[in-house]
Amino acid sequence: MSEKIKAFAAHEPKGKFEPFEFEAGELGKEEVEIKVAFSGVCHSDLSMLNNEWRMTEYPFVGGHEAVGQITAVGENVKQVKVGDTVGLGWNAETCGHCENCLSGFQINCPKLVGTIVGRHGGFADKVRCHWQWAIKLPNGLDASKAGPLFCGGITVFNPFVQLDIKPTDRVGVIGIGGLGHLALQFADKWGCEVTAFTSDLSKTDELKNLGADYVVNSRDSGELKKLRGRFDLILSTVNVALEWNRYLEALAPKGKLHLVGATLEPIPVVSFQLMGGQKSISSTATGSPTVVAKMLEFCARHNIETVTENYKMSQINQAFAHLESGKVRYRIVLENDF
Amino acid sequence: MSEKIKAFAAHEPKGKFEPFEFEAGELGKEEVEIKVAFSGVCHSDLSMLNNEWRMTEYPFVGGHEAVGQITAVGENVKQVKVGDTVGLGWNAETCGHCENCLSGFQINCPKLVGTIVGRHGGFADKVRCHWQWAIKLPNGLDASKAGPLFCGGITVFNPFVQLDIKPTDRVGVIGIGGLGHLALQFADKWGCEVTAFTSDLSKTDELKNLGADYVVNSRDSGELKKLRGRFDLILSTVNVALEWNRYLEALAPKGKLHLVGATLEPIPVVSFQLMGGQKSISSTATGSPTVVAKMLEFCARHNIETVTENYKMSQINQAFAHLESGKVRYRIVLENDF
Repeated sequence: MSEKIKAFAAHEPKGKFEPFEFEAGELGKEEVEIKVAFSGVCHSDLSMLNNEWRMTEYPFVGGHEAVGQITAVGENVKQVKVGDTVGLGWNAETCGHCENCLSGFQINCPKLVGTIVGRHGGFADKVRCHWQWAIKLPNGLDASKAGPLFCGGITVFNPFVQLDIKPTDRVGVIGIGGLGHLALQFADKWGCEVTAFTSDLSKTDELKNLGADYVVNSRDSGELKKLRGRFDLILSTVNVALEWNRYLEALAPKGKLHLVGATLEPIPVVSFQLMGGQKSISSTATGSPTVVAKMLEFCARHNIETVTENYKMSQINQAFAHLESGKVRYRIVLENDF
Repeated sequence: MSEKIKAFAAHEPKGKFEPFEFEAGELGKEEVEIKVAFSGVCHSDLSMLNNEWRMTEYPFVGGHEAVGQITAVGENVKQVKVGDTVGLGWNAETCGHCENCLSGFQINCPKLVGTIVGRHGGFADKVRCHWQWAIKLPNGLDASKAGPLFCGGITVFNPFVQLDIKPTDRVGVIGIGGLGHLALQFADKWGCEVTAFTSDLSKTDELKNLGADYVVNSRDSGELKKLRGRFDLILSTVNVALEWNRYLEALAPKGKLHLVGATLEPIPVVSFQLMGGQKSISSTATGSPTVVAKMLEFCARHNIETVTENYKMSQINQAFAHLESGKVRYRIVLENDF
């Protein structure tokens, strides 16, 4: 049983997306096929489109924040069935039997295959993945806004779990875009004191509505100085160089600077900066399936939602132009109109 | 009640130590006075002598690994009494009432006073400190070798506690000097698999006797490459630049690169290097009093001992010349011969 999948593909770096059909081959025994209803647009789709990370294959079908119903399952599939509404994020497949997979850290599996790395993603009518990575939406989540939780959301939720953040902690979030606006909501509902660091203070009221107790100019060295020793966690979602020294100083004793933005410019770290207050710098990417499931429940229970701008999938090139403008508030979601 | 203390002091950066007497003033209510029996020589004494950290005051009396009997106590002193054999490390005083002190992280107290920072240390007949930092030696520890545990030892023991290292973990130690040779013993007795990284392979047999399962050339890029993904903890005791990329690659998923060496040259950290395997970079300095006490018990139970080279305190300048040569195996201890 083989079939054709309709999609949008770019054929070169910085190319436009064009209608594209491909032969999907037989569904794997461990695979599910999802009929895409909605597909979020993540900044990584743009990086991949432009081959910034030197791992893009063309024709390139992006999209790794897909939500929809399962339409077919391979014979060994567990946990999910045809008709379930699920989401799929950055990760499409892991081995299921290495130490990482067996200990619940699938995210560290050396055989991890990204949804849009060497395979075709969610800017399509259908998308496939290993059943472990097709995670059911709990009741109460709006499917049209849930896609971005599967990449942007889990990327900023996972640190709260992995770093054992407490509701009594003070949390700063740097950069309030697709990831940051979810991080503010998570931190707020987690019970923390929340500070948003943004270079765009015009967002202040919105950010307070999203859960920020304080909004601080991320580039104002003087303001940062006043916050010396304050934060248990500073979560950076940006991919630009900042005054990292000031942010390290803004950490409380035992504070953590956690990077989820893909900064290519190195942060210069001197051991003295960390030693004085038992500080650390860490990073994670997305999160494992059980953590994704817990995040979805947490979102449903606390009415945490992506703030979206909506396009039809056929408007994908307009959507990407808007993404590149840097003006999205806060995440684009494409609705499948194939 | 005031008294004079005899010591050795240097009067300028890189100066020689000369006999020096100073008026100690009245003993504080919270203070104890220790008659120094033995005083370890730490590389930080040399850095302080030479004012490398821009905080040395002259005349400078170094020494922050002192062991001896308490000869006098202030009226508010708790826990210790005249006649107790105690040790004193880098930290001489903390406030006792801030959030850090009250939660057992005295080491992060903003009022922390270093034993040789703006005051006189253990290269002396007597030395004073707040009672919280005069920590009793348990039975079974050799006082002549215990001094270095109070700075070098706790510096490499504390990470095992703070980072929650498990006996099933694989631990690498970079740089096998005063700190590293204790770290090997701690890691071994902690139950871990232990790899020593050293630039001096002539030490191999000695390092295996100290607990190393493997000894690897710290500057051999090819050897490091083979260890990709192996270590849960890499503890760096060096203050020189290394191929940090290779060491980050040598971490297992969730692995930690922990810096206790005071590197002044920044380590360039790119978030991708940490993100892939949920890795972190952290640092601590020494450790809080209850952790010091636990370390001492652990040493007594497991026969962990500093490997020392012994000098009389009157030979202090010879001792420092030997320290500067880089040939100490593994820690110098001065015996008080005033």
